[in-house]
Amino acid sequence: MNTQSTIIDTGRSKAAHVQLAPVSAVALTDNFWAPRLEINRRDTLRSQYVKLEESGCFDNFRRAAGTKDVPFRGYPFQDTDVYKWIEGASWALAGKDDPELSAMIDAAIELIIPAQQPNGYLNTRFMFEKTDERWTTINTGANNMHEMYTAGHLFQAAVAHYRATGSESLLDVATKLATHIADTFGTEEDKLHGVDGHPEVEMGLVELARITGNRRFLEAAQYQLDTRLGMGRMNSAVYPYLPIREYDRVVGHAVCAVYLMAGAADAYAENGDESLRNMLDRIWDNMTQKQMYVTGGIGPRWDNEAFGADYELPGRAYAETCASIGSIMWNARMLAIDPDPKYADLIEQTLYNAFLSGFSLDGKQYFYQNVLSDDGTQRREAWFGCACCPPNVARLLAQLPGYFYAVSGSEVFVNLYAANQAEVSLPDGQTISLTQKTNYPWDGRIQIVAETTGSFTVNLRIPAWTRGAQLSINGDVQTAPSSGAYAKIKRDWKAGDVIELNLPMPVRQVIANPAVGELAGRTALLRGPLVYCFEQADNTDIDIRKIKLKPGAAFEAAFEADLLKGVTTLRGTAVIAEDACWDVRLYRDIDEVEEPVLKEVTVKAVPYYAWANREAGAMTIWVGRG
Amino acid sequence: MNTQSTIIDTGRSKAAHVQLAPVSAVALTDNFWAPRLEINRRDTLRSQYVKLEESGCFDNFRRAAGTKDVPFRGYPFQDTDVYKWIEGASWALAGKDDPELSAMIDAAIELIIPAQQPNGYLNTRFMFEKTDERWTTINTGANNMHEMYTAGHLFQAAVAHYRATGSESLLDVATKLATHIADTFGTEEDKLHGVDGHPEVEMGLVELARITGNRRFLEAAQYQLDTRLGMGRMNSAVYPYLPIREYDRVVGHAVCAVYLMAGAADAYAENGDESLRNMLDRIWDNMTQKQMYVTGGIGPRWDNEAFGADYELPGRAYAETCASIGSIMWNARMLAIDPDPKYADLIEQTLYNAFLSGFSLDGKQYFYQNVLSDDGTQRREAWFGCACCPPNVARLLAQLPGYFYAVSGSEVFVNLYAANQAEVSLPDGQTISLTQKTNYPWDGRIQIVAETTGSFTVNLRIPAWTRGAQLSINGDVQTAPSSGAYAKIKRDWKAGDVIELNLPMPVRQVIANPAVGELAGRTALLRGPLVYCFEQADNTDIDIRKIKLKPGAAFEAAFEADLLKGVTTLRGTAVIAEDACWDVRLYRDIDEVEEPVLKEVTVKAVPYYAWANREAGAMTIWVGRG
Repeated sequence: MNTQSTIIDTGRSKAAHVQLAPVSAVALTDNFWAPRLEINRRDTLRSQYVKLEESGCFDNFRRAAGTKDVPFRGYPFQDTDVYKWIEGASWALAGKDDPELSAMIDAAIELIIPAQQPNGYLNTRFMFEKTDERWTTINTGANNMHEMYTAGHLFQAAVAHYRATGSESLLDVATKLATHIADTFGTEEDKLHGVDGHPEVEMGLVELARITGNRRFLEAAQYQLDTRLGMGRMNSAVYPYLPIREYDRVVGHAVCAVYLMAGAADAYAENGDESLRNMLDRIWDNMTQKQMYVTGGIGPRWDNEAFGADYELPGRAYAETCASIGSIMWNARMLAIDPDPKYADLIEQTLYNAFLSGFSLDGKQYFYQNVLSDDGTQRREAWFGCACCPPNVARLLAQLPGYFYAVSGSEVFVNLYAANQAEVSLPDGQTISLTQKTNYPWDGRIQIVAETTGSFTVNLRIPAWTRGAQLSINGDVQTAPSSGAYAKIKRDWKAGDVIELNLPMPVRQVIANPAVGELAGRTALLRGPLVYCFEQADNTDIDIRKIKLKPGAAFEAAFEADLLKGVTTLRGTAVIAEDACWDVRLYRDIDEVEEPVLKEVTVKAVPYYAWANREAGAMTIWVGRG
Repeated sequence: MNTQSTIIDTGRSKAAHVQLAPVSAVALTDNFWAPRLEINRRDTLRSQYVKLEESGCFDNFRRAAGTKDVPFRGYPFQDTDVYKWIEGASWALAGKDDPELSAMIDAAIELIIPAQQPNGYLNTRFMFEKTDERWTTINTGANNMHEMYTAGHLFQAAVAHYRATGSESLLDVATKLATHIADTFGTEEDKLHGVDGHPEVEMGLVELARITGNRRFLEAAQYQLDTRLGMGRMNSAVYPYLPIREYDRVVGHAVCAVYLMAGAADAYAENGDESLRNMLDRIWDNMTQKQMYVTGGIGPRWDNEAFGADYELPGRAYAETCASIGSIMWNARMLAIDPDPKYADLIEQTLYNAFLSGFSLDGKQYFYQNVLSDDGTQRREAWFGCACCPPNVARLLAQLPGYFYAVSGSEVFVNLYAANQAEVSLPDGQTISLTQKTNYPWDGRIQIVAETTGSFTVNLRIPAWTRGAQLSINGDVQTAPSSGAYAKIKRDWKAGDVIELNLPMPVRQVIANPAVGELAGRTALLRGPLVYCFEQADNTDIDIRKIKLKPGAAFEAAFEADLLKGVTTLRGTAVIAEDACWDVRLYRDIDEVEEPVLKEVTVKAVPYYAWANREAGAMTIWVGRG
């Protein structure tokens, strides 16, 4: 067994090329992520623990254990709030000792253990008078009760708790339930047949198989994948009954879709089934080439929280925070299979934009939906009736150090940039220390100090968004690395060797594929990995809907320490059309419209993730091309 | 009492300036509407009658009457399918004798009568074990059971049946229920307080008051309006608890909103309360200036079938067929209050586009949602679980002749154009006959023959969309009439006098207000009252998403008798950008994008209403400006 705190342990997976380095291997020392992780550990996870009590989640376990006589409260998948919280709190422990948090986790697990049934079954919704309903809603699509989904979150929590602490207390619960599932479901005639409406269990089963070496758990995951027809919850109408290997575009409920793809990637890593891999590539291409917001957000539709038609990307995005998290989880698995920097690029893009917009700067309020334009109506909330997003945010933040590095043989891959100190074990037996010094994402200059003497390869991700990256080692300029590739540095390193990488971060205007009708004639500002937006608060006398940017318009980037907990803002000149002819008309004949008088104005953009942290007001990422 | 088949009888309303002419006054003789009304009467209404049996609607009445022991089936407002059908069938009878249809109506009414309770209560959902739940869900917002809404549809059915046939059989049922409501609800302490979540009853109560002269029914309607806080179902979050006179924008569930406005307009017509009128004007302005599709469709959001932010008009419109019908109903009431041609313009715009797209050319299939662009996924269906739209379409079609003319004193207003013969009673006592000869909407030339000698005024609506309208009487050219106004012709008419009106119908390119970000850089083709679209079927080798039209691009209009039951199509030259650089990229830096090679192609557009009547394929109204 492996108690290293790797979030995905592909170290012995036959079709995975790299293994992510453990969460505990990376100590973030930066001003961007480290404070967020600290807020997450110190405030968010503690306040969410209180919510678990208030929302009845803990009482549901007490009720199931027979120690409290209360009605079941919440959604059929209410248990997952507890599991996701344990997972997040466990990864936080992997990053930093915290006896109080550790005690909270233990208390939660003490509630879970006695709720498990003698046969291994565990789900507080299906107790007492509902015992006969266990596993009866499998295969019922929209009305399914998420039993497997709930089990999957338990498995992920148990994996995190075991890897972060070495304790087998929750792992035992998980393996009992996984065994029950493997005993209950399968192709054999005397077993139940069917899959859960909401994917998630697949990832958990594969990871349990990795920890325990029990292939039955992998087979149970593969059974779920092989038996599924259609991409997930409520999809039959749009994607009727296709087996997974025939999927050719991503459809339906976005969280379902990316969780399923993550589980399929996990299964592929273990079984090397190329028909699964080909499907994953097709779906990844469809999602990234035709169905993704510039923020990395996915799933435009508010009805059914779903993917839509190709190129359907209206400003009122749904782009659920959980879907962004699922996309990051899926891409981390693709990266482990195949260290192509496009996966790390997408993790970065989603992390800094669609994910980070999902919670407030103080870590206390959440967006379920992440729109790309708004009239000031959308505000984050402290909790939700269906509270999937808040503990999901907490677990991803706590996992974050585990996404920074990956290893293979005598190679290390640097996937994310932020000041940190890392001590990474390479599969070849070397343990190497690296120190990243950078002011990323505000500045593209990164210094990496090799603190270890040895012969190994450092692979630096050169993001596709940069141009003219520069690389030097101990001051010696190297061949200019290519964007969208890893810069591979194989070398006999001496402790103290310094890599200097410069990823130029000019302000970029980005436009969309002309097939996206709703973005015709529009442009967005980006700098480095960050998407920017115009908020009313910074542009007080301007109707921000009317901003037009000329191609090549100069924007000045300046760090403002006192604004929005410190952000680099962009200031430049835009034009505003003073077109009085439009005052009260919604549509006009084109030949009646007078050429508008263009007025130059100074506008200011802030990182999109930071929007809606001040007074309510309009916001837009996309503005006109003038 | 007045058995004239006017759909809204404002003849004695103190704040209404005109009265719509009866349905029975107008015999359509054209090739556009008359065949549709004939299909509606002969096929649609008959097949819907079968659906009422199949879907359990009739059995619900038998169950309530105690003559059949079956479970209640369907939605809480299931009875409305029957009521809307009776209303539609009755208006159809007003237009044409049809003994078989008449017998069907009588059979339906025979099912309704015994289901009414001794105290006047009638709703088949709230019988037997649910008797105690009557009126208990008033004021519960999203979860309300539509009891008043259901009553309102009964009232409208009874009004139609009485006015079309003179029979009081259903009117008696309606007045008993209305009396029960007036006895039950009110400001008095011993009465129930509260309003239904879904407006509709207001219109019905006012019209019953108009028929019976019973002011208590008007007061019951006014009580609903005065007591309401917020605009309707599920709106509290976006429009919390404002009394109706303070509304300043249209929000929430679109059908609720326009039904409520229609009821408020009815109440205003009776009570002349200017604070209601001012609210109606504010809401009308907001809807038409900031929240309406070019088709007249309203309510962009699929979640909650709702209005959105100002200028939020994505191509994947919800634009429910019923919302278009509600908008037409509201605007007919505004027109009765105040004969401003803008209301008739909007009726025409909605009728020919957002309404007409709601059902197939064969009258057998329906769109619930009316998108403005699609990838070929959207198809009409024969019926729905919540079947509000199909009988609503049937009743509006059957009512249609009643929207053509309005009268006041010695004046007649011509609101819609299509070949017809009308015999209209003026309030001054004259009965005048008019014959319209025209090939409208394909041709803007209209001939109106006054078949009656007498002194009266003819007001001709000159649509806002035309330019250079020409008018002559008996060949004498008159002063050119203004667009967006009524051309008033006061004259001593001699039988046989001929008005010739020409409303030029050039092909127009229309663009949207720059505040509509999602329509930036896009243009649409219109001709006369019709919005056009590009369908894949007519543009086989073209990616219609990539079509760009140059301003002033020439389009040729030609009638194609064999296409889509006869339509005028538009054919012209567009450019298609051959921009290979976009092949697999969704976003690019603007300075990396090469100037595309523009290829000229011939494209063809068809009326939007006729789309999705051939093989499934992409469709779009809005294309690029090139």
